[in-house]
Amino acid sequence: MKGKKGSIQIDIPSATKSNKQPGSGKEFGYGDAFSCKAWLWSVWEFCKEDSNRVIFALKVGLAVLLVSLLILLRAPYEIFGTNIIWSILTVAIMFEYTVGATFNRGFNRALGSLLAGILAVVVGQLALCAGRVAEPFIIGISIFLVGTVTSFMKLWPSLVPYEYGFRVILFTFCLIIVSGYRMGSPIRTAMGRLYSIAIGGFVAVIVNVLVHPIWAGEQLHRELVKSFDSVADSLEECVKKYLEDDGSDHPEFSKTVMDEFPDEPAYRKCRATLNSSAKLDSLANSAKWEPPHGRFRHFFYPWSEYVKVGAVLRYCAYEVMALHGVLHSEIQAPYNLRIAFRSEIQDVANQAAELVRSLGKDISSMKKTLKTSLLKRVHSSAEKLQGAMDLHSYLLTSHIDTPEKPSISKPLNPKPDESSGEQTSGPAAQPETYHEMMRRQSRRLYSWPSREVDAFEEEGVLNMDFLPRMNALESTASLSLATFTSLLIEFVARLDHLVEAVEELSKMAKFKSEAL
Amino acid sequence: MKGKKGSIQIDIPSATKSNKQPGSGKEFGYGDAFSCKAWLWSVWEFCKEDSNRVIFALKVGLAVLLVSLLILLRAPYEIFGTNIIWSILTVAIMFEYTVGATFNRGFNRALGSLLAGILAVVVGQLALCAGRVAEPFIIGISIFLVGTVTSFMKLWPSLVPYEYGFRVILFTFCLIIVSGYRMGSPIRTAMGRLYSIAIGGFVAVIVNVLVHPIWAGEQLHRELVKSFDSVADSLEECVKKYLEDDGSDHPEFSKTVMDEFPDEPAYRKCRATLNSSAKLDSLANSAKWEPPHGRFRHFFYPWSEYVKVGAVLRYCAYEVMALHGVLHSEIQAPYNLRIAFRSEIQDVANQAAELVRSLGKDISSMKKTLKTSLLKRVHSSAEKLQGAMDLHSYLLTSHIDTPEKPSISKPLNPKPDESSGEQTSGPAAQPETYHEMMRRQSRRLYSWPSREVDAFEEEGVLNMDFLPRMNALESTASLSLATFTSLLIEFVARLDHLVEAVEELSKMAKFKSEAL
Repeated sequence: MKGKKGSIQIDIPSATKSNKQPGSGKEFGYGDAFSCKAWLWSVWEFCKEDSNRVIFALKVGLAVLLVSLLILLRAPYEIFGTNIIWSILTVAIMFEYTVGATFNRGFNRALGSLLAGILAVVVGQLALCAGRVAEPFIIGISIFLVGTVTSFMKLWPSLVPYEYGFRVILFTFCLIIVSGYRMGSPIRTAMGRLYSIAIGGFVAVIVNVLVHPIWAGEQLHRELVKSFDSVADSLEECVKKYLEDDGSDHPEFSKTVMDEFPDEPAYRKCRATLNSSAKLDSLANSAKWEPPHGRFRHFFYPWSEYVKVGAVLRYCAYEVMALHGVLHSEIQAPYNLRIAFRSEIQDVANQAAELVRSLGKDISSMKKTLKTSLLKRVHSSAEKLQGAMDLHSYLLTSHIDTPEKPSISKPLNPKPDESSGEQTSGPAAQPETYHEMMRRQSRRLYSWPSREVDAFEEEGVLNMDFLPRMNALESTASLSLATFTSLLIEFVARLDHLVEAVEELSKMAKFKSEAL
Repeated sequence: MKGKKGSIQIDIPSATKSNKQPGSGKEFGYGDAFSCKAWLWSVWEFCKEDSNRVIFALKVGLAVLLVSLLILLRAPYEIFGTNIIWSILTVAIMFEYTVGATFNRGFNRALGSLLAGILAVVVGQLALCAGRVAEPFIIGISIFLVGTVTSFMKLWPSLVPYEYGFRVILFTFCLIIVSGYRMGSPIRTAMGRLYSIAIGGFVAVIVNVLVHPIWAGEQLHRELVKSFDSVADSLEECVKKYLEDDGSDHPEFSKTVMDEFPDEPAYRKCRATLNSSAKLDSLANSAKWEPPHGRFRHFFYPWSEYVKVGAVLRYCAYEVMALHGVLHSEIQAPYNLRIAFRSEIQDVANQAAELVRSLGKDISSMKKTLKTSLLKRVHSSAEKLQGAMDLHSYLLTSHIDTPEKPSISKPLNPKPDESSGEQTSGPAAQPETYHEMMRRQSRRLYSWPSREVDAFEEEGVLNMDFLPRMNALESTASLSLATFTSLLIEFVARLDHLVEAVEELSKMAKFKSEAL
């Protein structure tokens, strides 16, 4: 949700999800009493996967301990008094995973508290002047108004990122004005509270920055590089499967459409890339708050450019999703036809993947290299593929060039074991052997995705039998190869824009250039 | 981000974004001094668009006012004392847009406070028994440990939705144990605080539920229905554009790849649908907390099924995205070829869109109707389209059936006005008129998307001229039509699963059936 930009963000690398193999099915859960050892093991794995998690937890512990010392020790307690508990509250609420998010939240907290303090003091003085009778009414009305206005403003689209600040304004205002009313001297109450909030915020920021800082910028950088790799991997995986698959070694697809495709790890990562826009946005939003650090040494580092590159990359990933759709489509080109274009398709895919990976590597190492030669190679492979398609395009349609009534294969019964028996209405004009082979080679129709068979839904399964299923024309199946190659070529065409976007980024982020 | 499930959620309907026409360019912003009237107008529009926003704001005002009364009035203040300010804090933090989210947050708050209270009392007593010297050490260590453990646990994937609860545990524990240490009697401190938190939570829940409740379930329901409509709309829009477009009326695509496509409102809505998974998740998560209400009258209403239907719908939307990719692809089938299959393509698209809309309407009105006939009609149209492709497939390849060396058109210069001059290397074997027409009809290559020309990046534009551009084989352009139709047919194939998913939902949610 856009509404959460820049507020709390916890970096859970997607690897966490992907290591929950749907096959193994073992959900990590507390309370799994008899597998205590497995549980400990998974905790250990979880920590090892990203040691920042443990460090973050220890940092929070340290920060609250430091603040608590202000009360536990006698000297500071005598100076600050009980107001100091507000410091604890501030640390607990403000401490975020990354430095940028902490700064962002601290800014919200500080500005909100300040505004609320000023407002409360003004209204409080006004109420005091109005006399003892009018005072509670003025205070009540002001509380209602502040509550209404802040709540309305935080719904406003451009102010949504500051949602937390509006909350702070609301409760700080109420607290100061109400306790000022009961305890007198709103200014002193306000000052005391602001001091202790400032102390809490200071401790949170100091601990967060000085003790093993976790930078949102660094996370964003790595996240983007990872996305490049996952797109490249899934492209290769998808093409490899398309070319290798002779319809025999395919596992049954179970469950729903959104199944995990357990044999395609790269595809799942790519899908995660598609859903990562919110994460990139929020990381970039946090990163903007961070001072120059580590490898990102200059001010106004173009973090928003990372989001743009991510968007262009996602645009490429859409094509991979479409390729994946063709791979699992019900209508498949026969295996021998796919094989005919094998080397061309493979060349394009490999070189495109190599280009994507090399772009990712450039970003990763913050270097600028000329991509011209790689791009040219990909283009010439794509041209070769187009040329081959062109030259042999009669293959795509040759078996149907006698304009007879197109034959429609029977709609297959949803039950897989009956499907082979049903499929007997091949076009008579075609040589039997061709269709024999085609039938053998083409993936069993409707294998993708078979419907969910749930023990509790027997009735549902029966009902579904009445749903008509789509018929696939066998004779147009060959055109599915054209679809696959078109999508692949479109992917290559989009690479131009990806290269451009990365070049733009490398210019704005002043990557070191190697070639020049 | 998954991490935000069930925490704060503010429903900003996507309509808000879409009414910011990129053409009009007027960003709503505070501080736009000289257009005060326009600003007031946009606030008014914002309120009118969804009156719930105003109601929500007034509700928050009412809730804080009610809690403040406890202090402003003398009688309750004398009973509860200064602890009552915790009620204000609770209301300000707990009050959420929807009922479900408020319940969820209230649950986190209540359970967190309770656990923290118990823990604090136990540790406090333990420290008290340990003697005056050891006490601060025990307290300090316990604070550190609680801080570390809660922070670690909230990173654990399955506990991420309860992130807020862990924060509450942390600060409540610190507050109680620390103030107990300084003021004595941790139990009394804990009880006083818990009371006032309970009062705050009670007020927040009562106001939220009794005064014009905004149900997350209702929002989820409407959101899903809207997604159905937007997928149907964008499918029709995309196909319409594909068939109408003769290459002349196309506006220049400006800016980057992720441009808004201002002439395609439905496409943008569809893209929003693709990114809405987090929103649906979070709404469903909130909706689970809500009691039966309004149209959703039975317990355990299957809200998670809504998320599943949304996922299947998104799967269909991926195909629309791919169709949109073909529409704006650099390689285009000639206009006259597209026209040849016009009626078949239009039939499929219209009927598919009608089916999707009727599914959406079913959900909207919570009725169960048989989709068999509609589905059958879509299938038969899809078959007709396949048949037509089959019958006329020679059109797709006819001009290249003489296996000569495939001709490759020159890579076009990125500058559009020079492109027509460059394109002179048409294949000699083809009749000139055919290619003349094809060139005229086919969209100017590389119109999608032209690169960003930024005044500050003149140098960049120059550099980009050196980037090689992909060549497109004109002769394979016709195959792009095959791609378009394949994707359309794949969309239809996925509709089967969509119908199934909706049927599953209607069964589990006990929609009224009409036909039976």
